[in-house]
Amino acid sequence: MQFHHNGYVSTDPRVEEAAGYGIDRATELPDEMDVLIVGSGPAGMITAAQLAQFPNVNTRIIDRRPGRLEIGQADGIQARSVETFQAFGFAEEIVAEAYWITEMNFWGPDPKDPKNIVRHSRTMDDPQGISEFKHLIVNQARVLDYFARFAKLSPARITPDYGYDFKSLTVEEGEEYPVHAVLEYTDGPNAGTERVVRAKYVVGSDGARSNVRRSIGATLAGDQAFHAWGVMDTLALTDFPDVRIKCAIHSEAGSILLIPREGGNLFRLYVDLGEVAADDNGKVRQTSLDEIIKHAQSIMHPYTLEVKDVAWHSVYEVGHRLTDRFDDVLLEDIGKRDPRVFITGDACHTHSAKAGQGMNVSMQDGFNLAWKLGHVLTGLAPESLLSTYSAERQVIAKNLIDFDKEWSTLMAKKPEEFEDPSFVADFYVRTAEFPSGFMTEYQPSVLTGERTHQELAAGFPIGKRFKSAEVMRCSDTNPLHLGHQHKADGRWRIYVFADQAAPGAASPTTDLAEWLAESPDSPIVKHTPAGADFDSVFDLKVVYQTGYRDFDITDAPAAFRPSYGKFGLMHYEKIFAAIEGNSIFDERQVSKDGAIIVVRPDMYVANILPLDAKEELAAFFAPLFK
Amino acid sequence: MQFHHNGYVSTDPRVEEAAGYGIDRATELPDEMDVLIVGSGPAGMITAAQLAQFPNVNTRIIDRRPGRLEIGQADGIQARSVETFQAFGFAEEIVAEAYWITEMNFWGPDPKDPKNIVRHSRTMDDPQGISEFKHLIVNQARVLDYFARFAKLSPARITPDYGYDFKSLTVEEGEEYPVHAVLEYTDGPNAGTERVVRAKYVVGSDGARSNVRRSIGATLAGDQAFHAWGVMDTLALTDFPDVRIKCAIHSEAGSILLIPREGGNLFRLYVDLGEVAADDNGKVRQTSLDEIIKHAQSIMHPYTLEVKDVAWHSVYEVGHRLTDRFDDVLLEDIGKRDPRVFITGDACHTHSAKAGQGMNVSMQDGFNLAWKLGHVLTGLAPESLLSTYSAERQVIAKNLIDFDKEWSTLMAKKPEEFEDPSFVADFYVRTAEFPSGFMTEYQPSVLTGERTHQELAAGFPIGKRFKSAEVMRCSDTNPLHLGHQHKADGRWRIYVFADQAAPGAASPTTDLAEWLAESPDSPIVKHTPAGADFDSVFDLKVVYQTGYRDFDITDAPAAFRPSYGKFGLMHYEKIFAAIEGNSIFDERQVSKDGAIIVVRPDMYVANILPLDAKEELAAFFAPLFK
Repeated sequence: MQFHHNGYVSTDPRVEEAAGYGIDRATELPDEMDVLIVGSGPAGMITAAQLAQFPNVNTRIIDRRPGRLEIGQADGIQARSVETFQAFGFAEEIVAEAYWITEMNFWGPDPKDPKNIVRHSRTMDDPQGISEFKHLIVNQARVLDYFARFAKLSPARITPDYGYDFKSLTVEEGEEYPVHAVLEYTDGPNAGTERVVRAKYVVGSDGARSNVRRSIGATLAGDQAFHAWGVMDTLALTDFPDVRIKCAIHSEAGSILLIPREGGNLFRLYVDLGEVAADDNGKVRQTSLDEIIKHAQSIMHPYTLEVKDVAWHSVYEVGHRLTDRFDDVLLEDIGKRDPRVFITGDACHTHSAKAGQGMNVSMQDGFNLAWKLGHVLTGLAPESLLSTYSAERQVIAKNLIDFDKEWSTLMAKKPEEFEDPSFVADFYVRTAEFPSGFMTEYQPSVLTGERTHQELAAGFPIGKRFKSAEVMRCSDTNPLHLGHQHKADGRWRIYVFADQAAPGAASPTTDLAEWLAESPDSPIVKHTPAGADFDSVFDLKVVYQTGYRDFDITDAPAAFRPSYGKFGLMHYEKIFAAIEGNSIFDERQVSKDGAIIVVRPDMYVANILPLDAKEELAAFFAPLFK
Repeated sequence: MQFHHNGYVSTDPRVEEAAGYGIDRATELPDEMDVLIVGSGPAGMITAAQLAQFPNVNTRIIDRRPGRLEIGQADGIQARSVETFQAFGFAEEIVAEAYWITEMNFWGPDPKDPKNIVRHSRTMDDPQGISEFKHLIVNQARVLDYFARFAKLSPARITPDYGYDFKSLTVEEGEEYPVHAVLEYTDGPNAGTERVVRAKYVVGSDGARSNVRRSIGATLAGDQAFHAWGVMDTLALTDFPDVRIKCAIHSEAGSILLIPREGGNLFRLYVDLGEVAADDNGKVRQTSLDEIIKHAQSIMHPYTLEVKDVAWHSVYEVGHRLTDRFDDVLLEDIGKRDPRVFITGDACHTHSAKAGQGMNVSMQDGFNLAWKLGHVLTGLAPESLLSTYSAERQVIAKNLIDFDKEWSTLMAKKPEEFEDPSFVADFYVRTAEFPSGFMTEYQPSVLTGERTHQELAAGFPIGKRFKSAEVMRCSDTNPLHLGHQHKADGRWRIYVFADQAAPGAASPTTDLAEWLAESPDSPIVKHTPAGADFDSVFDLKVVYQTGYRDFDITDAPAAFRPSYGKFGLMHYEKIFAAIEGNSIFDERQVSKDGAIIVVRPDMYVANILPLDAKEELAAFFAPLFK
């Protein structure tokens, strides 16, 4: 955490200095704004949080609710999401209050007495150590609280505007604020009356029944047959010994997914209510809480379930549905015009809750989109960058739905339908990378380089998120996760993995550093606004192979210890060394000749280049900046 | 973290439910209160924070300042203090913003050219791995903020009453609120006028010039000769390569202790100004900032030091001084009456800042005292418990001062005075347990058992703080540090390290569990107030040797999974198993026949007993409860 560099900060350093629209932020929703985000769920809130790092962008986020979400909804947090929370500065805190999944147990009929369930198998949640982050369960309301805090303490000081329902929009091309959005007050003296506001861009994070989606003529297509589940967050007495472990229970009476929850006692049960007939007309939603409880009790037989309190319950039907585009550009117009309206999260993909995916993928939608809006609206990037959002995320959602179909079909199967009783457990372990959120792999595009030089750093697959490893920060001899230094501040990362020469000696690394700092062709020189700190758009870091005790930080080229802030102090936290016995070069298979690794603001590896590929580096960034 | 067990908690679970005096806490300082804490520094704030867990005790904390501390003062945080912060729930957060000491470097004259300094040695800060916690540097103001937050979010909802200066007190024995304290308003319309309030107990945490100390007739005795230091928190440009590493610099021009600070750029310099003559009369305190800077520059030669900003600076003289008692009971009256007034922190011990000790020892003073006040004032413990505070802490302060004298003498020595140039570095490493805060070892007393059964758990020395180790929490298969489950909630811990029998089988462990839960002689049965949860005074936990996958938690005796809260839910987080390959039994040399380990509310091991020593266990607790 960098603070004090512009003078002493006595209070919480997480409160960043207000800037731009954050200095005197309008308390009421204005008539015109740069970005209007519709919906303050996970997809919307991460978008607001990320844009709060761009104080010169006027971002507002509305919700039809009168205030914060209080209960219910999603609770599964993949490791990739915790990694994301880390970038937003609240991983430790949310981990401390969350439930941690370390195992998943599978229960089924007792072969000796099939009326009873017995434990069939235990599986480790992340046996391969896919991530250094935990797999959590915590209510969505708390995730939103933390993003809201980040947005509020960021320079733009963004807070949600509650009490506005989004009705419809039109795009009037040519105007400065071309998106006209019709809102309706849901609260206060004006409740029920409408109001039109204008925005440069609108982000529809307004859920499965999205009005933004409707307004841009996109439709969710997919399953006709829906599956119904009764879900309840409950406090109960039970002699079921695994009530604090995530369990899939298949019994003769049906199936349950049991999710232990934060706080030591609460747990969630998803009770299978079966396929819903096309002519059900919502009848299944009349299933009473009592019926759900009774059903759960019979599935858990011979164990008792004495429900003491139900914090929340719901019956929901879900299909696997997807829109064919995530913005307002018709498929046939792609490349002809740039988008003005986007949809994210449940507005463009719906699926079952069973794999704990929804909130996670939705947040990554928002993370993908928000920095692009930030770069375009601050004049750094061309508007064409925005078309990459739909191009990148629609296919990810498609993959998610395919996976979830398979998983939820398995979960809904009867025990006798499996040839091998361990099939579900095996599938769960085999496919772990997907539900932990690390399967996303963007394909070559303007934002993702070809795999030409992938072999220079085989452990950082291009298009996948930058998988962290430990390095030694030389200035203060702190061993740190390199990836955890990536704050969600909208900046590009350029990691220079040095060749074997000593720091500062004539070498490709030193040569590159000098070029980056001084050449008019350097992307840093070219794309950093005049007067801004050297590291304000590109965060350049170096990892040396030389042991940290074998050189002084002052040996390293100036590009790696730039001056910053109003006093022009030296930045000491960009020079790293591989740790002896635990070298990032070995762990991530980085060439001893060095490599440049370019990482996007949303943490995905964008490109890998040799140290001398200056032209290629410049060429990669050229279309991404104005 | 336990929450939801009394119903769903939607917001931050760190906000505990208000109770007792916290429900409708008086915004103004009342005329009568149970505890009056004077001074909101580290010693006072931890006392308030701990007492905030006792909502039926009316605790107030005053300070002469108009508001929170903003700058300056102590910044060294030992691992023992971070461990303490963990118990108060803010270790992760303060670690994230603090500077982490991993090495200390020693600089001295270049033998080839003694006008220049060169690096003589590097030392690891904690080479033996004394603690799993870090050694931090962070401003005292932030430590106070975090304790203040804990106090405010605790059931008693304590916040400081700023703007009151303590003048004097008298004790009128026989009255319900026998301590009459004369305060003076320092702020607001009444500034300068006096007011008398009455308390059952007064805690003087009012610093080296303590009026509470004066009021009880205690005096700081010790050194006549003081040593002066110029200290400044600065932002500067320098080519000194170790400016982000804690350094002791001895040069021909003098000596500096360099302490890097949080935030990436700030650092503190302690510049030695030498011994102060007895007739100096504070003249040394006139040393200007410019003089301090110039002195620092000459010591750091040939490195540059271009000061850009000085956030805080001071010149202070310090001696090693100590009071012979930490309460109002004269030495000759010990055992004849119980104390009413206590002094903590700098009010009873002063020493140099060089070993980074002051704030740390002061906090342990408060931690030691506060739970005792809580137990006495809630009627659990007899008043005699309070006399253990002075008995335990005075000797600790004496040890501290002896250590600090040695260390600060070394720091003030000239390079040529050392026979072996690595003497200082060697001393630093050799004595690491002391400055990290783990040398405290209480001697046998009513609170600390004899070492009779120490061999049952050699790795948990009686009288020292409970050194954590990892165990598996069986209910949710989370590997956790057992010691980190010890929240600063004023409860005693009883750890049952089980014998080798399977959980629930007839065994000394099962037998003990049943006795603890049911026997009228059980300390839990005897000393837990009627109607309170089984674990409200004693937090009983078990660690089995049986692998966690080899039994169900429902096999364990009911004492280890008691019911709690308004729904009578089962507590799932008290049953642990040794981790295969990393067994706490091996790591802490616990007998395979099992052992009972009793840990005080302030985290010190109070006693170790065999599993069948029921009478001894009852006898140990008998004098500690009413």
